Formats: sequence, structure tokens, C-alpha cells
Amino acid sequence: MAEEKREWPDLAGRIDGERHILPVRVYHEDTDFSGFVYHANYLRWIERGRSDYLRLLGIRHGELKDQGNDKASAFFVVRRMELDYLKPARMDEALEVVTSCAETGAAWLTLDQRVIRDNQCLFTARVQVVLISQAGKPLRLSEHIRTAFSNADFSKN
Amino acid sequence: MAEEKREWPDLAGRIDGERHILPVRVYHEDTDFSGFVYHANYLRWIERGRSDYLRLLGIRHGELKDQGNDKASAFFVVRRMELDYLKPARMDEALEVVTSCAETGAAWLTLDQRVIRDNQCLFTARVQVVLISQAGKPLRLSEHIRTAFSNADFSKN
Amino acid sequence: MAEEKREWPDLAGRIDGERHILPVRVYHEDTDFSGFVYHANYLRWIERGRSDYLRLLGIRHGELKDQGNDKASAFFVVRRMELDYLKPARMDEALEVVTSCAETGAAWLTLDQRVIRDNQCLFTARVQVVLISQAGKPLRLSEHIRTAFSNADFSKN
Amino acid sequence: MAEEKREWPDLAGRIDGERHILPVRVYHEDTDFSGFVYHANYLRWIERGRSDYLRLLGIRHGELKDQGNDKASAFFVVRRMELDYLKPARMDEALEVVTSCAETGAAWLTLDQRVIRDNQCLFTARVQVVLISQAGKPLRLSEHIRTAFSNADFSKN
Repeated sequence: MAEEKREWPDLAGRIDGERHILPVRVYHEDTDFSGFVYHANYLRWIERGRSDYLRLLGIRHGELKDQGNDKASAFFVVRRMELDYLKPARMDEALEVVTSCAETGAAWLTLDQRVIRDNQCLFTARVQVVLISQAGKPLRLSEHIRTAFSNADFSKN
Repeated sequence: MAEEKREWPDLAGRIDGERHILPVRVYHEDTDFSGFVYHANYLRWIERGRSDYLRLLGIRHGELKDQGNDKASAFFVVRRMELDYLKPARMDEALEVVTSCAETGAAWLTLDQRVIRDNQCLFTARVQVVLISQAGKPLRLSEHIRTAFSNADFSKN
Repeated sequence: MAEEKREWPDLAGRIDGERHILPVRVYHEDTDFSGFVYHANYLRWIERGRSDYLRLLGIRHGELKDQGNDKASAFFVVRRMELDYLKPARMDEALEVVTSCAETGAAWLTLDQRVIRDNQCLFTARVQVVLISQAGKPLRLSEHIRTAFSNADFSKN
Repeated sequence: MAEEKREWPDLAGRIDGERHILPVRVYHEDTDFSGFVYHANYLRWIERGRSDYLRLLGIRHGELKDQGNDKASAFFVVRRMELDYLKPARMDEALEVVTSCAETGAAWLTLDQRVIRDNQCLFTARVQVVLISQAGKPLRLSEHIRTAFSNADFSKN
């Protein structure tokens, strides 16, 4: 991990105060025959943003565990999304995914995410994720996760 | 088209009253390492449902035109989505995408879409689509499209 | 399963002698900004063909097991592919994936797959798959799997 | 472009002598229920490698033109691929796509591509791409493109 960071310092984006910024490039795979980015692909980008924000906060997917049953893995899953597509993105553009934590609950996080090009917002998402066990049961967020996001939780202020 | 329909009669699903039903199978490509279906892939499935509903109503993507500029193609694009993930789907399951029209405007349609397994609802989406020109300008829906959905527009009743 | 088959009889395609045929539709998700189908998406289609061929032969992914360690799941994975892109496919077309078994080994299968439009071949693939344990070790194919493909194994004739 | 490069210097990877190196992260979207990376997703990664190699050589997709018909766009398309899957990749890993030019023809390029983790090769591809017009006709490569790759064309030595 340490070595990887030296080689490609921005592979997981950067934390900038209470938000995370991840650059993404529009490739062939992201577009459709309209010439614009295919709408579902914004969800892949913002999931990369959430994953890399967690990564830079020190939370690895592979290490999430069901604490009542520590043999089993745990997963963040999306429970709800509200998506607004404001302007289209096109092939070859360099965009940024901006992620911030809007609210934390016992078993969930709500994140605000945007895709921007220069200073223009192309897409916004409000995303609620929950931590679940392999059996699909919601799990309490660990103190580690709750603390990591607490500075960024504007609902507490 | 006629021949294709004989060969694979359900390839575009079926219209059942005021709704469209499309069967989808969960393949490797739809899952992720959690063992569940990857959340963004529901958007691919419901887009197939919208496309095939339009297809069975006689509206082909390739024939959508900017009527003020009939050389140019027009495209339905998603403007807004509200998504609720209720229960996970898994590899090999046979699901159905159920689509109905909730409301029609001058330049947009709002559709209610669900993914169901047996009689259980796994996922719901409210989707607003708009017709745009290649330059990105909203276009009026043709009388053909508005009429096709009018029986299914519960907001008019 | 029985009921599903009545409802959507062709969801898994059809076996026709020594080959399997699966219809696929070109949707938005399959295209890219060139207007053609994105090249990697043929791999999704032919994987659907392989999965549904196995399904109709009575072999379910969820039931593949490491026979030396029957708690663990086993998976077919692709070891090698040779792909030829002959003609492009476009939005809204109805295509067929045709799959036949070319050769079987102790731990592997080689399949010939084609994507056709009407009687025209757009794409061919020669695909070698192996059965592996969750730890990544190759496993012998069960008698059930070997027998299911034996009629179709032209290398034995 | 200049500003983007300052902000995220490695977004398009780096040219290192006669090869291009692009870092890629394994995200949820890349995996399937087996826990490994889904085989078709290596094609998305190596396409990103080819696109970014062209980008750093000064060749932009949007600027490729049919020189006999300069209103029309031209596209690189894949004609043939030979793929070997050697070892699986898993969630959260940081990988590199290494691309070098093996041979150039009048209308085609053959590229050797590998996906590596640390110093271990997980996947190799030999990829032939051709430049085609929107009508699907092969086009001669411009002197610019042929020169850009000429140092890297080992078949000429």
C-alpha cells in the first residue's frame, strides 16, 4: 500500500477538508450511441468516489466485518438514491467526483455526491448506504467509521 | 421485425394492460463480490424495460427525430431518478421489470418501474425522461408518443 | 423453475441439436459513442450464452462444488479467448448468440461461439473455460458435465 | 488540458520508454459473485490503456477524421484479440495496465497489453485495432499516428 501510494499518489483521489475529490476520465465504455455518457455509468463513478473516500479514511472493504459473527464479511450496500442529471458529459472529458457526508445514523450514512466538469455541476446524487451482513441484516456502524465521518456530518452542527 | 417476433416472441417482453413486463436473468456480469447484484445494474435492466415498452408501442429509438430539424436524431435521456433498493437479487435468478407511465408532460414522461422476483418487490424507481436533440435541447413529445402513453397516464384520471 | 419456464419459455434460449442459441437485443448499455456496440460487450453476451447452455443442460452455477471440499463453491472461469470482430452491430438490433462445444478435457471445456444477425456472422470467439475452487485451484469436471457435452464434442469423432 | 494535467498529473498514466503504464483500481463494478474480477472487465481496462497511450502521444479520439471525407468522424475499432487469463485479480487491488506497440500496418496497429499486480502478470492481450469511417470502411493511418508509434514498432527492427 505504502509503495503504491508513492507510485500513483492520486489513484484514490484526495481528501480536501470535509469532502473527497476523485478524478475520472470518460472512456469508450462510459458512452452510448447518443454520444453522451450512459446514465447508469454515473453510478459506477460515484461508487468509486465512496470507495476511495473510505479507503483514504482507513476503511477497507475487505476488512468490514459482522461484529456479532466475526467469521463473516460485511458490505456497504445502497438503500436509496436520488439522482439529478443536469448536463451531459462526453467522450474524453476529465471530470471530478466530489463526495461529502450529509448525515450519519446508527446503521447508515447519507452522502452528497456531485460530478463536475471545470466548475460546472453535471450530476448530483444523494445516496443512503447501510452496512449489512452476508445474510442481508443491517449492522451497526463501528465507532471507527462513525468517528471518521463525524467532522463531516453537518446534521450534527 | 415480424420474423423476429415469431422466432423469439418474448424478446421485448409483453404489454399487460397499462404496464409492460420484461423478464431478465441475473448473469455473472450483474453481480459483484458481495454475491448480490451490483446496484448500478438495476439501471441497465429498467432502461431495457423502458426501451422495450417503447418498442412494443411502436416507437423505435432510431426513428426519434428532432422535428424542427429533421436531419438530426433525438434521444430520450434520464433527467431524474428516485431509487429504492428493498431486497437483494442473486446470481441465476429470473426477475421481471414492470414499467408503467405515471405522468406525461409536454417534453417529458415520468415512469414507475419495479424489479420483482415471484411476487416480491426488490427495487423501485421513479424515472423522469426527456426527449432532447443532439445539441442537448429539450424537444416536444410527438402526438404519437403522447397518445401511446395516454391510457396509462393515471395523473389525467 | 418449472413455472418460470412456462411464463417466459425462451428466457434461457434453446438447444438446437449440438448447439445452443440465445437471442440478445442491443440496448443503450451495449453501444458506445461510435454508434456501434462496444467491443467488450460481446463478452457479456457470449457469457450469457454459456451460462444458459449450462442451465438448459441442467448445470446450475450455484450448484457447482469443489468435490474434494464440498463446503466450497466452484466456478467456471475463462482461461483463454480468441476473438474476431467481423462486422459491427448497432442499437436496437436483435441478434443471436450460438454456442457449441469444440473440445472437452479433464478440467476444461473449449467452446465455439458466434454472434449472428440474420444469417450474417458478426463476431466469433473460441473460449477455453476451466472449473476452479474458491482458492483458484483447477478442479476435474464432474461426469455429469462431461456427459452433457459429450454428444457435442466433435474432437472425439 | 494543460490545467487538468497539473491537477491530476497521472490521470492518463505515464509513457515509460516504448510502453505506456496506466494504474487501475479494482472497484465493486469490476468484480462478480465469484469474488474475482469479471473477465470482460479486463477489456475495459486495456481499452483505457490504449486510449490514454494515444492521448499522451497527442492523438485525441474526437479529432480522428476520415481524411477522404472530412466532415465525418473516424474511430479505432478492435478487429482481433487473443486473451490469456493467468491469475485472478480481486477487490481493492491496485493494478497496472502496460501497453506497447507490437506492429503497425497501413490501416492497423497491433498492441501487446498486460495487466500486472506488483511484478506478477495476471492477464495478457494481443490486440489488433483498425481505423474505420462511420460507414465502417477501413482508413489509412495518418503519418502522425504511424510516426508516434514507429519507435515502438519492434517488427521494423
